[in-house]
Amino acid sequence: MSTFTVKAYGAESTTADLKEMNIERRDTTLNDVEIEILYCGVCHSDLHTARNDWGGTMYPAVPGHEIVGRITKTGADVTKFKVGDLAAVGCMVDSCGTCESCKKDLEQYCLNGFTGTYNGKDKHLGGHTFGGYSQKVVVDQNFVLKVPENLDLAALAPLLCAGITTWSPLRHWNVGPGSKVAVIGLGGLGHMAIKLAKGLGAEVTLFSRTPGKTEDAKQLGADHVVISTEEAEMDAVKGKFDVIIDTVPYIHDVNPYVTTLNISGTLVLVGYLGGLEPILNTVPMIMGRKSVAASLIGGIAETQEMLDFCGKHNIVSEIEMIKMNEINEAYERMLKSDVRYRFVIDMQSL
Amino acid sequence: MSTFTVKAYGAESTTADLKEMNIERRDTTLNDVEIEILYCGVCHSDLHTARNDWGGTMYPAVPGHEIVGRITKTGADVTKFKVGDLAAVGCMVDSCGTCESCKKDLEQYCLNGFTGTYNGKDKHLGGHTFGGYSQKVVVDQNFVLKVPENLDLAALAPLLCAGITTWSPLRHWNVGPGSKVAVIGLGGLGHMAIKLAKGLGAEVTLFSRTPGKTEDAKQLGADHVVISTEEAEMDAVKGKFDVIIDTVPYIHDVNPYVTTLNISGTLVLVGYLGGLEPILNTVPMIMGRKSVAASLIGGIAETQEMLDFCGKHNIVSEIEMIKMNEINEAYERMLKSDVRYRFVIDMQSL
Repeated sequence: MSTFTVKAYGAESTTADLKEMNIERRDTTLNDVEIEILYCGVCHSDLHTARNDWGGTMYPAVPGHEIVGRITKTGADVTKFKVGDLAAVGCMVDSCGTCESCKKDLEQYCLNGFTGTYNGKDKHLGGHTFGGYSQKVVVDQNFVLKVPENLDLAALAPLLCAGITTWSPLRHWNVGPGSKVAVIGLGGLGHMAIKLAKGLGAEVTLFSRTPGKTEDAKQLGADHVVISTEEAEMDAVKGKFDVIIDTVPYIHDVNPYVTTLNISGTLVLVGYLGGLEPILNTVPMIMGRKSVAASLIGGIAETQEMLDFCGKHNIVSEIEMIKMNEINEAYERMLKSDVRYRFVIDMQSL
Repeated sequence: MSTFTVKAYGAESTTADLKEMNIERRDTTLNDVEIEILYCGVCHSDLHTARNDWGGTMYPAVPGHEIVGRITKTGADVTKFKVGDLAAVGCMVDSCGTCESCKKDLEQYCLNGFTGTYNGKDKHLGGHTFGGYSQKVVVDQNFVLKVPENLDLAALAPLLCAGITTWSPLRHWNVGPGSKVAVIGLGGLGHMAIKLAKGLGAEVTLFSRTPGKTEDAKQLGADHVVISTEEAEMDAVKGKFDVIIDTVPYIHDVNPYVTTLNISGTLVLVGYLGGLEPILNTVPMIMGRKSVAASLIGGIAETQEMLDFCGKHNIVSEIEMIKMNEINEAYERMLKSDVRYRFVIDMQSL
């Protein structure tokens, strides 16, 4: 299969800083589009993958799955896009297309495993996929999203992961006007959860450990902020929420939040992979038909739905723009939660 | 308030056997019906309450919340029943009637606390309520169910707790034709879960630790039996079930069952109150939008719906009839799971 070379930024090993490198992209096949990448958001998963925090990283690792760009080439069978169109790519670039999940537009739960935008198994070239920290990417049109023309392109990039990851559970658990939604944690995911839940018409509360984020949260659209370390504040919201979006990416006690769920309410974990410790107590769950659930990004059709919704409601991410060569420093700042609320790389700087 | 004396069977203390005693019932007020109790099912909660296993038992404790009988007297404002009608009472005899839960027919989640049929706070006489191990009971008509005439009255009694406890989650999580349902544990609740899920049109699988119950399960309506200690059998049902009704009443590892849930599936705990140990792993949950939930009995309208459904589909419990003075022995056998599948007391024997 013929390829072409593009500049990228990636890690050569677990401990190496990211640096400039060349990678190969396939020439567009019949259903592919070639995208010149304009902006790429920086997700915590990028860092975890670069540093092999979860194991399984294949090197060189080129992260990036919040991609916004412009179509520069289309395969002969491409009908969805034409050269010059804006386009976006999120966390997936392929899936089997034939399993029960794929048939239901739930490619994120593809029973044969979706192809990650980076560190996935490259079905075309062999080896593994390379993400958006690069000049161009070639993707099957079915995994490419249309971009609303009215939004700031850089600020739109994080919708492709942080946005859809919170949108999907809000939709699946039927959030709408009248819903009472709480968001745990105000980071990349949390700030999008606030904006999207608010956009859907919900009354939105942020749970935060410190009062320092109260003003920010309210500016983002939160109606209330509850300081989770204050017992009286937690008591005051017992039994209140229909849906809680828990964006905390590290181990934490979900039990105090379960008690703030309304009857038949659901707490959805979107940030934490691991064991629930301290152990989950079923008593408050059984006494109110409460659920603890978890959710992974969202399907392609659902991602398009979210982008269209954001276009209509003028919703984008709060971002801090960086140059490509500032990525290592940005990772260090992310580890300290020192970002409001998402880094986005100006890919012209590569 | 005027009262009358009836014979009952109860425990005087944590360690005492149950024995005959006299208790007072209120004379019917405007909205009450007086019921001569014909049969009363024996639930594990009866035993736990009699022995104060959960704490909070008030003595003397007269258990019994699977009550079937005949109306012997009605208050002046009673419109739902007339003397001579069959009637049933389940786990609740009252609730606040005004909270958000009660307004939604979810009296079991009454925000002010429903009144348990036994060991509840008696709003009329003070003290605590006495259950169905007695000759008569007086209950507000709104907490009394109509009984389908075509069913065996003794075998119907366990529907009032074991039945509704499994019916409510099957309905809430939309089980119907085409659903794949699994049931964990084949006891009082489990055997009803199989019958009701099958009645609703689902394909039903029993998870059992031993092959000894396979034949029984199939006779009850199970399509499949999976021996949960056999790795190959568990592997074969990975990702299969839309809803799992977990009836196990003691601490157990739910993680292996979560992996058998289909995408967007829900495991509902109906038997176990306590901490989930070993700790719940969120990874299989996030990788398939799976939920772990819990559910408590069911509302009054839903209980009536279930009884009507059982009448239509000829569904009752599998029972072993006992005399009132055999209750202590029955408790010992229950502790050894030596009952297929529910004891029911012939109250004429009191």
